[in-house]
Amino acid sequence: MKVTEGGVTAAKGFEAAGVEAGVKYQNRKDMALLYSRAPCRAAGTFTGNLVKAAPVKWDRELVENSPFVQAVVVNSGIANACTGEQGMECCRAEAARAGELLGIPEHAVLVASTGVIGMQMPLDRVCAGIEKLAAEKNPSLEAGHDAARAIMTTDTVPKEIAVEFELGGRTVTLGGMCKGSGMIHPNMCTMLGFLTTDANISKEMLSRALKADVKDSFNMISVDGDTSTNDTLLLLANGLAGNREITGEGEDYDRFCEALRYVTVYLAKKMAGDGEGATALFACQVVGAASKEDARVLARSVICSSLSKAAIFGHDANFGRFLCALGYSGAVFDPENVDLYFESANGRLHIYGAGCALDYSEEEATAILSAPEVTVLADLHMGDGEATAWGCDLSYDYVKINADYRS
Amino acid sequence: MKVTEGGVTAAKGFEAAGVEAGVKYQNRKDMALLYSRAPCRAAGTFTGNLVKAAPVKWDRELVENSPFVQAVVVNSGIANACTGEQGMECCRAEAARAGELLGIPEHAVLVASTGVIGMQMPLDRVCAGIEKLAAEKNPSLEAGHDAARAIMTTDTVPKEIAVEFELGGRTVTLGGMCKGSGMIHPNMCTMLGFLTTDANISKEMLSRALKADVKDSFNMISVDGDTSTNDTLLLLANGLAGNREITGEGEDYDRFCEALRYVTVYLAKKMAGDGEGATALFACQVVGAASKEDARVLARSVICSSLSKAAIFGHDANFGRFLCALGYSGAVFDPENVDLYFESANGRLHIYGAGCALDYSEEEATAILSAPEVTVLADLHMGDGEATAWGCDLSYDYVKINADYRS
Repeated sequence: MKVTEGGVTAAKGFEAAGVEAGVKYQNRKDMALLYSRAPCRAAGTFTGNLVKAAPVKWDRELVENSPFVQAVVVNSGIANACTGEQGMECCRAEAARAGELLGIPEHAVLVASTGVIGMQMPLDRVCAGIEKLAAEKNPSLEAGHDAARAIMTTDTVPKEIAVEFELGGRTVTLGGMCKGSGMIHPNMCTMLGFLTTDANISKEMLSRALKADVKDSFNMISVDGDTSTNDTLLLLANGLAGNREITGEGEDYDRFCEALRYVTVYLAKKMAGDGEGATALFACQVVGAASKEDARVLARSVICSSLSKAAIFGHDANFGRFLCALGYSGAVFDPENVDLYFESANGRLHIYGAGCALDYSEEEATAILSAPEVTVLADLHMGDGEATAWGCDLSYDYVKINADYRS
Repeated sequence: MKVTEGGVTAAKGFEAAGVEAGVKYQNRKDMALLYSRAPCRAAGTFTGNLVKAAPVKWDRELVENSPFVQAVVVNSGIANACTGEQGMECCRAEAARAGELLGIPEHAVLVASTGVIGMQMPLDRVCAGIEKLAAEKNPSLEAGHDAARAIMTTDTVPKEIAVEFELGGRTVTLGGMCKGSGMIHPNMCTMLGFLTTDANISKEMLSRALKADVKDSFNMISVDGDTSTNDTLLLLANGLAGNREITGEGEDYDRFCEALRYVTVYLAKKMAGDGEGATALFACQVVGAASKEDARVLARSVICSSLSKAAIFGHDANFGRFLCALGYSGAVFDPENVDLYFESANGRLHIYGAGCALDYSEEEATAILSAPEVTVLADLHMGDGEATAWGCDLSYDYVKINADYRS
């Protein structure tokens, strides 16, 4: 497997576009189109929030019941959430207009929205945007990049990646893009993410691969503990790589899952590190837990803790906060038998063990915590459960961005 | 029942003191003593965090097994948490020294600490502080006030209250004080709180009253979602009011519980409103929920949401965030059948209903959200479950306070 150029247009047969439609933002790209020349099998995971945005309802229905999908229309600026029947009508109109222009059925068009909750979509501007998108779509890497830019809200950088790997002598490509910066918290998946592949894989195995994957990728990140109403992760496979169809477990499926994991963890970490106001990517790695699930729960508890996040922002070796967050996670362990370490490009430090602080250097600790990527490692000495969760620090800018997001 | 002057020394037979001991802070009171002339029955609730500070372990043992208690020694600055066997030894030494000076057994002395986790206590300074406290303790309201000041950490105001009520012709007094500003999140109880009463009440009924009470008072507040390692709420009753002993349910027990609720809700709200960096008390009232427990879960979810808290700080009527937080709470309801209102001293506004935003005035909404106490009211139209939770907004100062708390 190797990392290659591009994002959602890297795989064979996929095209994209990103345009300025003025949905809510002015003078920036705010609508994107993903299109596959061949019909795709689709898998998706969606928000666990009871309050689901209209596009989430639309996509869930299609991913489950549509014989194939072939396009995704995305907008930023307005979330089309808490918008009642009018919001559903908007999804239907978007899919109908895109289907008409692309020559595919309405039920082959997925839609996704991100932005302010509770505001109705300006359907005329959205439809005008779809017309532009249909005219401009193309298979270039630049087109994929435009799409990745168009779906950003408070994100500061676009997030995309692609990898290549071999399946039975055929080169298969898997690429993806995502957006997400605030209202990010593990629950199914917590962002908009779009993955495309030319792999030939059955719908059942595609879905199984995605559901297994998010447990250790997108479900292991948090920016602020708020699970959004719009979380959507879609994985489209058009089969154009020509590999023998993956219809069950085995070496091919494992290779596909490995590539998927690489892409999703890359994107998930990108999202956590670009959390609203973040100055650092803040990871917590738990080893020696009683089970894998315990390790996940413990790691997530630490990266979700406001006080831990603030300590990272302050480069402050206040290790009690990390231990405290492990303690209220709900997972059982012996606090007297935990080792805590700080790790970054600037070094590694053993800071707590045998129930007490070790005699560490504050200076050294501060230096380690001042790196752009910081890891807190906890060894519980109980079993072989391991997991890593990713978040970011809590800064003044998080408050600034969110105290007046709508204006 | 009427509110009277004072705090922990308002009830008959209770004395207090607050002194400068230099445990960690300089030039401010940082140790407090509570003392009862008569032996007390005690009830307590403690942190649900697996990582428990040494004083929590000490107090749990005493509240369960000691025949009576008669004093509490408290310090701020250092939490005596994650301090291993040395931390437990410190509790024992504190209780022994205080018992010696006060002429009571070691097992009649509770201890409590709050401050930085992971640092060992300076036992010599702590014992010198205990000597000062024993010399200065007295029953004046001022002494109670000194104690309330001494237990503060990042609190900006001391928190105390007392009420009087009648039981069988006798005047009974119940008073209390608490501290808490950060690392505040509902789980058993999340702060240091000390309640004193001269009521004559059996240990069993005292404990039952306290456990029932915290569900709707201290367990319904959150500042930052972090459950501390030191949470301790103690209720001491010395019986000096001379009422007939409360040994079961009935009118007297109900009156006692009513007074207890008044005192605990007052203190809990004070704590939430004085949350680190807070500029407003942020309440969420849920009515029409399927059950009382659902209402609690829903109300807590809203006041814990970083995005909701940031919207309150920004006086921004971004109602989707409140609805979103209801949606991921875990409680089931129909998002299409929710009414949301904003309420404060500046007015009341119906903002969302029937699945859509209502046609409200942004100006009016901003005015309502600019008050120092703001309530988001959600009516779910399902049953008669009602609950209120209290938190605070998320401001720049929360980050500032916590990015470098230790220095």
